[in-house]
Amino acid sequence: MKPPFRTSRRVEFGDTDMAGIAHFANFFRYMEAAETEFLRTLGLSVTWRQGSERYGFPRVSAACDFKRPARFEDVLEIAVTVEEVGQKSVRYRFDFSHNGQEVAVGRITTVHCRATPDHGLESVEIPAGLRAKLTGS
Amino acid sequence: MKPPFRTSRRVEFGDTDMAGIAHFANFFRYMEAAETEFLRTLGLSVTWRQGSERYGFPRVSAACDFKRPARFEDVLEIAVTVEEVGQKSVRYRFDFSHNGQEVAVGRITTVHCRATPDHGLESVEIPAGLRAKLTGS
Amino acid sequence: MKPPFRTSRRVEFGDTDMAGIAHFANFFRYMEAAETEFLRTLGLSVTWRQGSERYGFPRVSAACDFKRPARFEDVLEIAVTVEEVGQKSVRYRFDFSHNGQEVAVGRITTVHCRATPDHGLESVEIPAGLRAKLTGS
Amino acid sequence: MKPPFRTSRRVEFGDTDMAGIAHFANFFRYMEAAETEFLRTLGLSVTWRQGSERYGFPRVSAACDFKRPARFEDVLEIAVTVEEVGQKSVRYRFDFSHNGQEVAVGRITTVHCRATPDHGLESVEIPAGLRAKLTGS
Repeated sequence: MKPPFRTSRRVEFGDTDMAGIAHFANFFRYMEAAETEFLRTLGLSVTWRQGSERYGFPRVSAACDFKRPARFEDVLEIAVTVEEVGQKSVRYRFDFSHNGQEVAVGRITTVHCRATPDHGLESVEIPAGLRAKLTGS
Repeated sequence: MKPPFRTSRRVEFGDTDMAGIAHFANFFRYMEAAETEFLRTLGLSVTWRQGSERYGFPRVSAACDFKRPARFEDVLEIAVTVEEVGQKSVRYRFDFSHNGQEVAVGRITTVHCRATPDHGLESVEIPAGLRAKLTGS
Repeated sequence: MKPPFRTSRRVEFGDTDMAGIAHFANFFRYMEAAETEFLRTLGLSVTWRQGSERYGFPRVSAACDFKRPARFEDVLEIAVTVEEVGQKSVRYRFDFSHNGQEVAVGRITTVHCRATPDHGLESVEIPAGLRAKLTGS
Repeated sequence: MKPPFRTSRRVEFGDTDMAGIAHFANFFRYMEAAETEFLRTLGLSVTWRQGSERYGFPRVSAACDFKRPARFEDVLEIAVTVEEVGQKSVRYRFDFSHNGQEVAVGRITTVHCRATPDHGLESVEIPAGLRAKLTGS
Protein backbone atom coordinates (compact mmCIF):
# COMPACT_ATOMS: atom_id res chain seq x y z
CA MET A 1 0.00 0.00 0.00
CA LYS A 2 1.51 3.31 -1.00
CA PRO A 3 1.61 6.28 1.39
CA PRO A 4 -1.52 8.44 1.55
CA PHE A 5 -2.04 11.34 -0.82
CA ARG A 6 -2.23 14.55 1.21
CA THR A 7 -4.23 17.66 0.50
CA SER A 8 -6.01 20.34 2.52
CA ARG A 9 -9.20 22.37 2.42
CA ARG A 10 -10.37 25.47 4.21
CA VAL A 11 -13.90 25.48 5.67
CA GLU A 12 -15.90 28.22 3.93
CA PHE A 13 -18.61 30.37 5.48
CA GLY A 14 -21.22 28.70 3.28
CA ASP A 15 -20.09 25.28 4.56
CA THR A 16 -21.16 26.09 8.14
CA ASP A 17 -24.58 25.60 9.72
CA MET A 18 -26.40 27.34 12.55
CA ALA A 19 -24.50 25.19 15.08
CA GLY A 20 -21.44 27.18 13.97
CA ILE A 21 -19.64 24.17 12.49
CA ALA A 22 -19.06 22.66 9.05
CA HIS A 23 -22.31 20.90 8.13
CA PHE A 24 -21.74 17.13 8.14
CA ALA A 25 -22.93 16.60 4.54
CA ASN A 26 -20.08 18.78 3.29
CA PHE A 27 -17.53 16.20 4.40
CA PHE A 28 -18.82 13.96 1.61
CA ARG A 29 -18.14 16.76 -0.88
CA TYR A 30 -14.70 17.28 0.64
CA MET A 31 -13.99 13.57 0.23
CA GLU A 32 -15.02 13.47 -3.40
CA ALA A 33 -12.94 16.57 -4.18
CA ALA A 34 -9.90 15.04 -2.44
CA GLU A 35 -10.41 11.79 -4.38
CA THR A 36 -10.60 13.80 -7.62
CA GLU A 37 -7.38 15.61 -6.72
CA PHE A 38 -5.69 12.31 -5.98
CA LEU A 39 -6.88 10.85 -9.30
CA ARG A 40 -5.65 13.98 -11.09
CA THR A 41 -2.11 13.34 -9.82
CA LEU A 42 -2.37 9.97 -11.62
CA GLY A 43 -3.68 11.55 -14.82
CA LEU A 44 -7.15 10.20 -14.01
CA SER A 45 -10.53 11.60 -12.97
CA VAL A 46 -13.90 10.53 -11.56
CA THR A 47 -15.39 10.65 -15.06
CA TRP A 48 -13.71 10.67 -18.48
CA ARG A 49 -14.22 9.90 -22.16
CA GLN A 50 -12.39 7.05 -23.85
CA GLY A 51 -13.06 7.14 -27.56
CA SER A 52 -16.80 7.54 -27.91
CA GLU A 53 -17.54 6.11 -24.47
CA ARG A 54 -17.82 7.70 -21.05
CA TYR A 55 -16.27 5.95 -18.07
CA GLY A 56 -16.32 6.87 -14.43
CA PHE A 57 -16.25 5.90 -10.78
CA PRO A 58 -19.77 6.37 -9.37
CA ARG A 59 -20.08 5.89 -5.62
CA VAL A 60 -21.83 2.82 -4.22
CA SER A 61 -21.28 3.61 -0.58
CA ALA A 62 -20.06 6.44 1.62
CA ALA A 63 -19.64 6.74 5.37
CA CYS A 64 -18.12 9.17 7.83
CA ASP A 65 -17.47 9.27 11.58
CA PHE A 66 -17.30 12.75 13.03
CA LYS A 67 -14.88 13.17 15.93
CA ARG A 68 -14.52 16.92 16.43
CA PRO A 69 -16.33 19.86 14.86
CA ALA A 70 -14.61 21.84 12.10
CA ARG A 71 -15.21 25.58 12.08
CA PHE A 72 -15.18 28.45 9.59
CA GLU A 73 -11.65 29.18 8.33
CA ASP A 74 -10.23 25.92 9.73
CA VAL A 75 -7.79 24.37 7.29
CA LEU A 76 -8.48 20.63 7.30
CA GLU A 77 -5.63 18.29 6.45
CA ILE A 78 -6.92 15.35 4.40
CA ALA A 79 -5.02 12.09 3.92
CA VAL A 80 -6.41 9.89 1.12
CA THR A 81 -5.57 6.20 1.31
CA VAL A 82 -6.48 3.60 -1.31
CA GLU A 83 -7.63 0.91 1.11
CA GLU A 84 -8.66 -1.73 -1.36
CA VAL A 85 -8.82 -2.23 -5.11
CA GLY A 86 -11.24 -5.04 -6.00
CA GLN A 87 -12.10 -6.50 -9.40
CA LYS A 88 -14.28 -3.52 -10.22
CA SER A 89 -14.28 -1.36 -7.10
CA VAL A 90 -11.98 1.01 -5.23
CA ARG A 91 -12.35 1.83 -1.55
CA TYR A 92 -10.78 5.03 -0.23
CA ARG A 93 -10.21 6.14 3.33
CA PHE A 94 -10.07 9.83 4.19
CA ASP A 95 -8.52 11.06 7.42
CA PHE A 96 -9.43 14.64 8.28
CA SER A 97 -7.43 16.48 10.92
CA HIS A 98 -6.94 20.04 12.12
CA ASN A 99 -3.94 21.22 14.11
CA GLY A 100 -2.93 17.61 14.61
CA GLN A 101 -6.29 16.57 16.04
CA GLU A 102 -8.53 14.03 14.35
CA VAL A 103 -11.69 15.67 12.95
CA ALA A 104 -13.34 12.90 10.93
CA VAL A 105 -12.66 9.57 9.22
CA GLY A 106 -14.60 8.71 6.08
CA ARG A 107 -14.74 5.99 3.49
CA ILE A 108 -16.04 5.94 -0.05
CA THR A 109 -16.39 2.91 -2.31
CA THR A 110 -16.56 3.56 -6.03
CA VAL A 111 -17.18 1.18 -8.91
CA HIS A 112 -15.48 1.39 -12.29
CA CYS A 113 -18.34 1.88 -14.77
CA ARG A 114 -19.05 2.52 -18.41
CA ALA A 115 -22.06 4.62 -19.40
CA THR A 116 -24.48 2.67 -21.60
CA PRO A 117 -26.26 4.27 -24.58
CA ASP A 118 -29.56 4.39 -22.63
CA HIS A 119 -27.95 6.57 -19.91
CA GLY A 120 -27.47 3.68 -17.54
CA LEU A 121 -24.24 2.42 -16.01
CA GLU A 122 -22.51 -0.93 -16.37
CA SER A 123 -19.72 -2.01 -14.03
CA VAL A 124 -16.49 -2.99 -15.78
CA GLU A 125 -13.37 -4.77 -14.52
CA ILE A 126 -10.55 -2.37 -13.66
CA PRO A 127 -7.84 -2.85 -16.30
CA ALA A 128 -4.31 -3.71 -15.13
CA GLY A 129 -2.82 -0.33 -16.02
CA LEU A 130 -5.44 1.58 -14.05
CA ARG A 131 -5.08 -0.85 -11.14
CA ALA A 132 -1.32 -0.35 -11.06
CA LYS A 133 -1.77 3.43 -10.91
CA LEU A 134 -4.28 3.21 -8.08
CA THR A 135 -2.23 0.85 -5.95
CA GLY A 136 1.06 2.52 -6.81
CA SER A 137 2.54 -0.88 -7.58
CA MET B 1 -50.19 38.99 -16.85
CA LYS B 2 -51.67 36.06 -14.99
CA PRO B 3 -51.68 35.91 -11.18
CA PRO B 4 -48.50 34.56 -9.52
CA PHE B 5 -48.00 30.86 -8.94
CA ARG B 6 -47.74 30.26 -5.20
CA THR B 7 -45.72 27.63 -3.39
CA SER B 8 -43.86 27.36 -0.09
CA ARG B 9 -40.68 25.91 1.27
CA ARG B 10 -39.41 25.18 4.75
CA VAL B 11 -35.85 26.22 5.64
CA GLU B 12 -33.86 23.08 6.48
CA PHE B 13 -31.08 22.79 9.05
CA GLY B 14 -28.56 22.22 6.29
CA ASP B 15 -29.67 25.47 4.61
CA THR B 16 -28.52 27.59 7.56
CA ASP B 17 -25.08 29.06 8.16
CA MET B 18 -23.17 30.02 11.31
CA ALA B 19 -25.04 33.36 11.41
CA GLY B 20 -28.10 31.24 12.24
CA ILE B 21 -29.96 32.14 9.05
CA ALA B 22 -30.63 30.57 5.66
CA HIS B 23 -27.43 31.01 3.66
CA PHE B 24 -28.04 33.51 0.86
CA ALA B 25 -26.93 31.18 -1.95
CA ASN B 26 -29.79 28.83 -1.08
CA PHE B 27 -32.35 31.39 -2.22
CA PHE B 28 -31.15 30.77 -5.76
CA ARG B 29 -31.85 27.06 -5.32
CA TYR B 30 -35.25 27.89 -3.83
CA MET B 31 -36.03 30.05 -6.87
CA GLU B 32 -35.07 27.37 -9.36
CA ALA B 33 -37.14 24.76 -7.51
CA ALA B 34 -40.15 27.12 -7.43
CA GLU B 35 -39.72 27.81 -11.16
CA THR B 36 -39.58 24.06 -11.82
CA GLU B 37 -42.76 23.56 -9.79
CA PHE B 38 -44.46 26.31 -11.73
CA LEU B 39 -43.38 24.78 -15.04
CA ARG B 40 -44.60 21.38 -13.86
CA THR B 41 -48.11 22.78 -13.40
CA LEU B 42 -47.94 23.66 -17.13
CA GLY B 43 -46.69 20.22 -18.11
CA LEU B 44 -43.20 21.69 -18.65
CA SER B 45 -39.78 21.50 -17.00
CA VAL B 46 -36.40 23.24 -16.95
CA THR B 47 -34.97 20.53 -19.21
CA TRP B 48 -36.72 17.98 -21.44
CA ARG B 49 -36.29 15.73 -24.47
CA GLN B 50 -38.20 16.37 -27.67
CA GLY B 51 -37.64 13.55 -30.09
CA SER B 52 -33.90 12.98 -30.12
CA GLU B 53 -33.08 16.49 -28.91
CA ARG B 54 -32.70 18.00 -25.46
CA TYR B 55 -34.23 21.40 -24.76
CA GLY B 56 -34.10 23.51 -21.65
CA PHE B 57 -34.09 26.88 -19.96
CA PRO B 58 -30.55 27.58 -18.75
CA ARG B 59 -30.17 30.71 -16.64
CA VAL B 60 -28.39 33.77 -18.05
CA SER B 61 -28.85 35.97 -15.03
CA ALA B 62 -30.00 35.76 -11.43
CA ALA B 63 -30.32 38.36 -8.70
CA CYS B 64 -31.76 38.61 -5.21
CA ASP B 65 -32.32 41.36 -2.64
CA PHE B 66 -32.41 40.14 0.93
CA LYS B 67 -34.77 42.06 3.23
CA ARG B 68 -35.07 39.96 6.36
CA PRO B 69 -33.27 36.80 7.47
CA ALA B 70 -35.03 33.44 7.17
CA ARG B 71 -34.39 30.95 9.94
CA PHE B 72 -34.44 27.17 10.44
CA GLU B 73 -38.00 25.78 10.26
CA ASP B 74 -39.41 29.01 8.77
CA VAL B 75 -41.92 28.23 6.04
CA LEU B 76 -41.27 30.70 3.23
CA GLU B 77 -44.17 31.65 1.00
CA ILE B 78 -42.97 32.06 -2.59
CA ALA B 79 -44.91 33.87 -5.32
CA VAL B 80 -43.61 33.22 -8.83
CA THR B 81 -44.50 35.83 -11.47
CA VAL B 82 -43.65 35.58 -15.16
CA GLU B 83 -42.48 39.17 -15.59
CA GLU B 84 -41.53 39.05 -19.23
CA VAL B 85 -41.48 36.58 -22.09
CA GLY B 86 -39.12 37.77 -24.83
CA GLN B 87 -38.35 36.19 -28.21
CA LYS B 88 -36.15 33.58 -26.59
CA SER B 89 -36.07 34.47 -22.91
CA VAL B 90 -38.29 34.31 -19.82
CA ARG B 91 -37.84 36.52 -16.77
CA TYR B 92 -39.33 35.39 -13.47
CA ARG B 93 -39.81 37.35 -10.27
CA PHE B 94 -39.88 35.53 -6.93
CA ASP B 95 -41.36 37.16 -3.84
CA PHE B 96 -40.37 35.41 -0.61
CA SER B 97 -42.30 36.18 2.57
CA HIS B 98 -42.73 34.73 6.02
CA ASN B 99 -45.65 35.47 8.30
CA GLY B 100 -46.69 38.25 5.96
CA GLN B 101 -43.30 39.96 6.05
CA GLU B 102 -41.14 40.36 2.97
CA VAL B 103 -38.00 38.20 3.19
CA ALA B 104 -36.44 38.51 -0.26
CA VAL B 105 -37.17 39.43 -3.86
CA GLY B 106 -35.33 37.65 -6.63
CA ARG B 107 -35.28 37.51 -10.40
CA ILE B 108 -34.06 34.87 -12.80
CA THR B 109 -33.79 35.19 -16.57
CA THR B 110 -33.70 31.97 -18.54
CA VAL B 111 -33.18 31.40 -22.26
CA HIS B 112 -34.95 28.75 -24.32
CA CYS B 113 -32.14 26.55 -25.67
CA ARG B 114 -31.48 23.41 -27.63
CA ALA B 115 -28.48 21.24 -26.79
CA THR B 116 -26.14 20.88 -29.77
CA PRO B 117 -24.40 17.58 -30.61
CA ASP B 118 -21.07 18.94 -29.30
CA HIS B 119 -22.57 19.51 -25.83
CA GLY B 120 -23.04 23.21 -26.39
CA LEU B 121 -26.25 25.21 -26.24
CA GLU B 122 -28.03 27.20 -28.93
CA SER B 123 -30.79 29.69 -28.13
CA VAL B 124 -34.08 29.05 -29.94
CA GLU B 125 -37.19 31.20 -30.34
CA ILE B 126 -39.95 30.28 -27.92
CA PRO B 127 -42.73 28.64 -29.95
CA ALA B 128 -46.24 30.12 -29.74
CA GLY B 129 -47.70 27.23 -27.75
CA LEU B 130 -45.03 27.41 -25.08
CA ARG B 131 -45.32 31.20 -24.96
CA ALA B 132 -49.09 30.96 -24.43
CA LYS B 133 -48.60 28.56 -21.54
CA LEU B 134 -46.02 30.80 -19.88
CA THR B 135 -48.06 33.98 -20.19
CA GLY B 136 -51.32 32.26 -19.42
CA SER B 137 -52.86 33.96 -22.45
CA MET C 1 -40.16 -0.69 17.59
CA LYS C 2 -42.85 1.50 16.08
CA PRO C 3 -43.57 1.55 12.34
CA PRO C 4 -41.39 3.83 10.20
CA PHE C 5 -42.24 7.46 9.64
CA ARG C 6 -42.87 8.00 5.94
CA THR C 7 -42.20 11.07 3.87
CA SER C 8 -41.15 11.85 0.31
CA ARG C 9 -38.91 14.23 -1.56
CA ARG C 10 -38.60 15.23 -5.18
CA VAL C 11 -35.11 15.42 -6.71
CA GLU C 12 -34.47 19.01 -7.80
CA PHE C 13 -32.45 20.12 -10.81
CA GLY C 14 -29.80 21.58 -8.52
CA ASP C 15 -29.46 18.20 -6.78
CA THR C 16 -28.22 16.50 -9.94
CA ASP C 17 -24.64 16.24 -11.19
CA MET C 18 -23.12 15.86 -14.64
CA ALA C 19 -23.75 12.11 -14.52
CA GLY C 20 -27.44 13.06 -14.74
CA ILE C 21 -28.30 11.68 -11.29
CA ALA C 22 -28.85 13.04 -7.79
CA HIS C 23 -25.37 13.76 -6.40
CA PHE C 24 -24.61 11.27 -3.62
CA ALA C 25 -23.88 13.93 -0.98
CA ASN C 26 -27.45 15.18 -1.26
CA PHE C 27 -28.76 11.94 0.23
CA PHE C 28 -27.23 13.04 3.53
CA ARG C 29 -29.20 16.29 3.33
CA TYR C 30 -32.34 14.33 2.43
CA MET C 31 -31.78 12.12 5.50
CA GLU C 32 -31.36 15.04 7.87
CA ALA C 33 -34.46 16.76 6.50
CA ALA C 34 -36.49 13.54 6.88
CA GLU C 35 -35.20 13.15 10.45
CA THR C 36 -36.20 16.75 11.18
CA GLU C 37 -39.67 16.11 9.78
CA PHE C 38 -39.99 13.00 11.90
CA LEU C 39 -38.89 14.90 15.02
CA ARG C 40 -41.38 17.68 14.17
CA THR C 41 -44.24 15.17 14.31
CA LEU C 42 -43.13 14.51 17.90
CA GLY C 43 -42.94 18.20 18.75
CA LEU C 44 -39.13 17.98 18.65
CA SER C 45 -36.32 19.25 16.41
CA VAL C 46 -32.61 18.74 15.70
CA THR C 47 -31.81 21.84 17.78
CA TRP C 48 -33.89 23.73 20.33
CA ARG C 49 -33.69 26.09 23.30
CA GLN C 50 -34.69 24.96 26.77
CA GLY C 51 -34.65 27.91 29.12
CA SER C 52 -31.37 29.67 28.48
CA GLU C 53 -29.66 26.58 27.08
CA ARG C 54 -29.43 25.18 23.58
CA TYR C 55 -29.83 21.44 23.06
CA GLY C 56 -29.56 19.41 19.92
CA PHE C 57 -28.74 16.18 18.14
CA PRO C 58 -25.43 16.63 16.30
CA ARG C 59 -24.42 13.76 14.04
CA VAL C 60 -21.51 11.49 15.03
CA SER C 61 -21.74 9.18 12.07
CA ALA C 62 -23.51 8.88 8.75
CA ALA C 63 -23.44 6.25 6.04
CA CYS C 64 -25.28 5.42 2.86
CA ASP C 65 -25.35 2.57 0.35
CA PHE C 66 -26.47 3.57 -3.12
CA LYS C 67 -28.42 0.90 -5.02
CA ARG C 68 -29.96 2.71 -7.98
CA PRO C 69 -29.53 6.24 -9.31
CA ALA C 70 -32.23 8.82 -8.59
CA ARG C 71 -32.95 11.32 -11.34
CA PHE C 72 -34.35 14.84 -11.71
CA GLU C 73 -38.07 14.96 -10.87
CA ASP C 74 -38.05 11.50 -9.24
CA VAL C 75 -40.15 11.49 -6.08
CA LEU C 76 -38.23 9.46 -3.52
CA GLU C 77 -40.21 7.67 -0.83
CA ILE C 78 -38.32 7.80 2.46
CA ALA C 79 -39.04 5.53 5.43
CA VAL C 80 -37.42 6.67 8.69
CA THR C 81 -36.91 4.01 11.35
CA VAL C 82 -35.56 4.64 14.85
CA GLU C 83 -33.20 1.67 14.94
CA GLU C 84 -31.72 2.20 18.37
CA VAL C 85 -31.99 4.64 21.25
CA GLY C 86 -28.93 4.40 23.50
CA GLN C 87 -28.13 6.24 26.74
CA LYS C 88 -27.26 9.40 24.82
CA SER C 89 -27.53 8.46 21.16
CA VAL C 90 -30.17 7.77 18.52
CA ARG C 91 -29.56 5.75 15.37
CA TYR C 92 -31.91 6.20 12.42
CA ARG C 93 -32.26 4.11 9.30
CA PHE C 94 -33.52 5.67 6.08
CA ASP C 95 -34.90 3.56 3.25
CA PHE C 96 -35.15 5.43 -0.05
CA SER C 97 -37.24 3.97 -2.85
CA HIS C 98 -38.74 5.08 -6.14
CA ASN C 99 -41.62 3.34 -7.90
CA GLY C 100 -41.24 0.45 -5.48
CA GLN C 101 -37.54 -0.04 -6.21
CA GLU C 102 -34.85 0.41 -3.59
CA VAL C 103 -32.70 3.48 -4.30
CA ALA C 104 -30.53 3.82 -1.18
CA VAL C 105 -30.27 2.81 2.47
CA GLY C 106 -28.68 5.20 4.91
CA ARG C 107 -27.99 5.46 8.61
CA ILE C 108 -27.32 8.42 10.85
CA THR C 109 -26.30 8.33 14.50
CA THR C 110 -26.93 11.46 16.52
CA VAL C 111 -25.99 12.29 20.11
CA HIS C 112 -28.14 14.27 22.52
CA CYS C 113 -26.03 17.31 23.42
CA ARG C 114 -26.12 20.55 25.33
CA ALA C 115 -24.20 23.58 24.04
CA THR C 116 -21.63 24.78 26.55
CA PRO C 117 -20.97 28.51 27.18
CA ASP C 118 -17.66 28.28 25.25
CA HIS C 119 -19.49 27.12 22.09
CA GLY C 120 -18.58 23.51 22.64
CA LEU C 121 -20.92 20.54 22.98
CA GLU C 122 -21.44 18.17 25.89
CA SER C 123 -23.31 14.89 25.50
CA VAL C 124 -26.24 14.45 27.89
CA GLU C 125 -28.32 11.39 28.78
CA ILE C 126 -31.63 11.28 26.90
CA PRO C 127 -34.38 11.97 29.46
CA ALA C 128 -37.19 9.40 29.84
CA GLY C 129 -39.86 11.58 28.24
CA LEU C 130 -37.79 12.21 25.13
CA ARG C 131 -36.84 8.53 24.94
CA ALA C 132 -40.49 7.50 25.10
CA LYS C 133 -41.35 9.82 22.23
CA LEU C 134 -38.51 8.52 20.07
CA THR C 135 -39.27 4.84 20.64
CA GLY C 136 -43.03 5.34 20.51
CA SER C 137 -43.36 3.34 23.72
CA MET D 1 -9.58 52.25 -6.69
CA LYS D 2 -6.94 49.63 -6.09
CA PRO D 3 -6.30 46.79 -8.55
CA PRO D 4 -8.49 43.70 -8.22
CA PHE D 5 -7.61 40.87 -5.89
CA ARG D 6 -7.07 37.74 -7.94
CA THR D 7 -7.76 34.15 -6.98
CA SER D 8 -8.89 30.97 -8.74
CA ARG D 9 -11.12 28.01 -8.14
CA ARG D 10 -11.51 24.64 -9.79
CA VAL D 11 -15.04 23.40 -10.59
CA GLU D 12 -15.67 20.22 -8.61
CA PHE D 13 -17.74 17.25 -9.73
CA GLY D 14 -20.33 18.01 -7.05
CA ASP D 15 -20.66 21.57 -8.41
CA THR D 16 -22.00 20.34 -11.75
CA ASP D 17 -25.60 19.61 -12.70
CA MET D 18 -27.22 17.29 -15.23
CA ALA D 19 -26.61 19.88 -17.96
CA GLY D 20 -22.93 19.05 -17.49
CA ILE D 21 -22.00 22.53 -16.26
CA ALA D 22 -21.35 24.24 -12.92
CA HIS D 23 -24.79 24.85 -11.39
CA PHE D 24 -25.51 28.59 -11.38
CA ALA D 25 -26.16 28.81 -7.62
CA ASN D 26 -22.57 27.74 -6.97
CA PHE D 27 -21.26 30.98 -8.43
CA PHE D 28 -22.70 32.74 -5.38
CA ARG D 29 -20.70 30.41 -3.13
CA TYR D 30 -17.61 31.01 -5.27
CA MET D 31 -18.12 34.78 -4.87
CA GLU D 32 -18.46 34.62 -1.10
CA ALA D 33 -15.37 32.43 -0.82
CA ALA D 34 -13.37 34.83 -3.01
CA GLU D 35 -14.58 37.78 -0.91
CA THR D 36 -13.51 35.92 2.25
CA GLU D 37 -10.09 35.25 0.74
CA PHE D 38 -9.75 38.92 -0.18
CA LEU D 39 -10.74 39.99 3.33
CA ARG D 40 -8.25 37.51 4.78
CA THR D 41 -5.41 39.23 2.93
CA LEU D 42 -6.45 42.39 4.84
CA GLY D 43 -6.57 40.58 8.18
CA LEU D 44 -10.38 40.67 8.03
CA SER D 45 -13.22 38.19 7.56
CA VAL D 46 -16.96 38.03 6.81
CA THR D 47 -17.68 37.54 10.53
CA TRP D 48 -15.52 38.19 13.57
CA ARG D 49 -15.58 38.87 17.32
CA GLN D 50 -14.53 42.23 18.72
CA GLY D 51 -14.45 42.05 22.48
CA SER D 52 -17.73 40.45 23.50
CA GLU D 53 -19.51 41.43 20.29
CA ARG D 54 -19.84 39.72 16.93
CA TYR D 55 -19.51 41.80 13.77
CA GLY D 56 -19.90 40.78 10.18
CA PHE D 57 -20.81 41.60 6.59
CA PRO D 58 -24.15 39.95 5.81
CA ARG D 59 -25.26 40.17 2.18
CA VAL D 60 -28.18 42.43 1.21
CA SER D 61 -28.04 41.75 -2.50
CA ALA D 62 -26.36 39.43 -4.95
CA ALA D 63 -26.52 39.16 -8.71
CA CYS D 64 -24.76 37.30 -11.49
CA ASP D 65 -24.78 37.32 -15.29
CA PHE D 66 -23.73 34.04 -16.86
CA LYS D 67 -21.86 34.37 -20.16
CA ARG D 68 -20.38 30.94 -20.82
CA PRO D 69 -20.80 27.62 -19.04
CA ALA D 70 -18.05 26.41 -16.69
CA ARG D 71 -17.36 22.68 -16.67
CA PHE D 72 -15.93 20.06 -14.33
CA GLU D 73 -12.19 20.57 -13.74
CA ASP D 74 -12.21 24.08 -15.27
CA VAL D 75 -10.04 26.43 -13.23
CA LEU D 76 -11.92 29.73 -13.00
CA GLU D 77 -9.89 32.90 -12.61
CA ILE D 78 -11.70 35.31 -10.28
CA ALA D 79 -10.93 39.04 -10.04
CA VAL D 80 -12.48 40.72 -6.98
CA THR D 81 -12.94 44.49 -7.21
CA VAL D 82 -14.21 46.71 -4.39
CA GLU D 83 -16.59 48.79 -6.49
CA GLU D 84 -17.99 51.02 -3.79
CA VAL D 85 -17.62 51.55 -0.05
CA GLY D 86 -20.63 53.42 1.32
CA GLN D 87 -21.34 54.62 4.86
CA LYS D 88 -22.22 51.11 5.97
CA SER D 89 -22.03 48.99 2.83
CA VAL D 90 -19.47 47.45 0.52
CA ARG D 91 -20.18 46.43 -3.06
CA TYR D 92 -17.90 43.90 -4.74
CA ARG D 93 -17.64 42.94 -8.37
CA PHE D 94 -16.44 39.47 -9.36
CA ASP D 95 -15.15 38.73 -12.85
CA PHE D 96 -14.95 35.03 -13.65
CA SER D 97 -12.96 33.86 -16.63
CA HIS D 98 -11.54 30.65 -18.02
CA ASN D 99 -8.71 30.47 -20.55
CA GLY D 100 -9.07 34.20 -21.10
CA GLN D 101 -12.78 34.02 -21.88
CA GLU D 102 -15.42 35.71 -19.74
CA VAL D 103 -17.54 33.16 -17.87
CA ALA D 104 -19.63 35.29 -15.49
CA VAL D 105 -19.81 38.69 -13.83
CA GLY D 106 -21.32 38.96 -10.38
CA ARG D 107 -21.91 41.57 -7.71
CA ILE D 108 -22.50 41.29 -4.00
CA THR D 109 -23.43 44.09 -1.63
CA THR D 110 -22.72 43.53 2.04
CA VAL D 111 -23.58 45.68 5.05
CA HIS D 112 -21.34 46.16 8.07
CA CYS D 113 -23.38 44.85 11.01
CA ARG D 114 -23.19 44.12 14.70
CA ALA D 115 -25.09 41.18 16.16
CA THR D 116 -27.60 42.29 18.79
CA PRO D 117 -28.18 40.29 22.01
CA ASP D 118 -31.55 39.01 20.65
CA HIS D 119 -29.79 37.39 17.66
CA GLY D 120 -30.75 40.20 15.31
CA LEU D 121 -28.43 42.39 13.28
CA GLU D 122 -27.89 46.15 13.39
CA SER D 123 -26.08 48.02 10.63
CA VAL D 124 -23.10 50.07 11.81
CA GLU D 125 -21.02 52.75 10.06
CA ILE D 126 -17.77 51.38 8.65
CA PRO D 127 -14.94 52.81 10.78
CA ALA D 128 -12.17 54.78 9.05
CA GLY D 129 -9.52 52.11 9.56
CA LEU D 130 -11.65 49.38 8.03
CA ARG D 131 -12.63 51.68 5.17
CA ALA D 132 -9.00 52.46 4.40
CA LYS D 133 -8.18 48.76 4.23
CA LEU D 134 -11.09 48.03 1.88
CA THR D 135 -10.34 50.87 -0.50
CA GLY D 136 -6.59 50.42 -0.30
CA SER D 137 -6.21 54.15 0.30
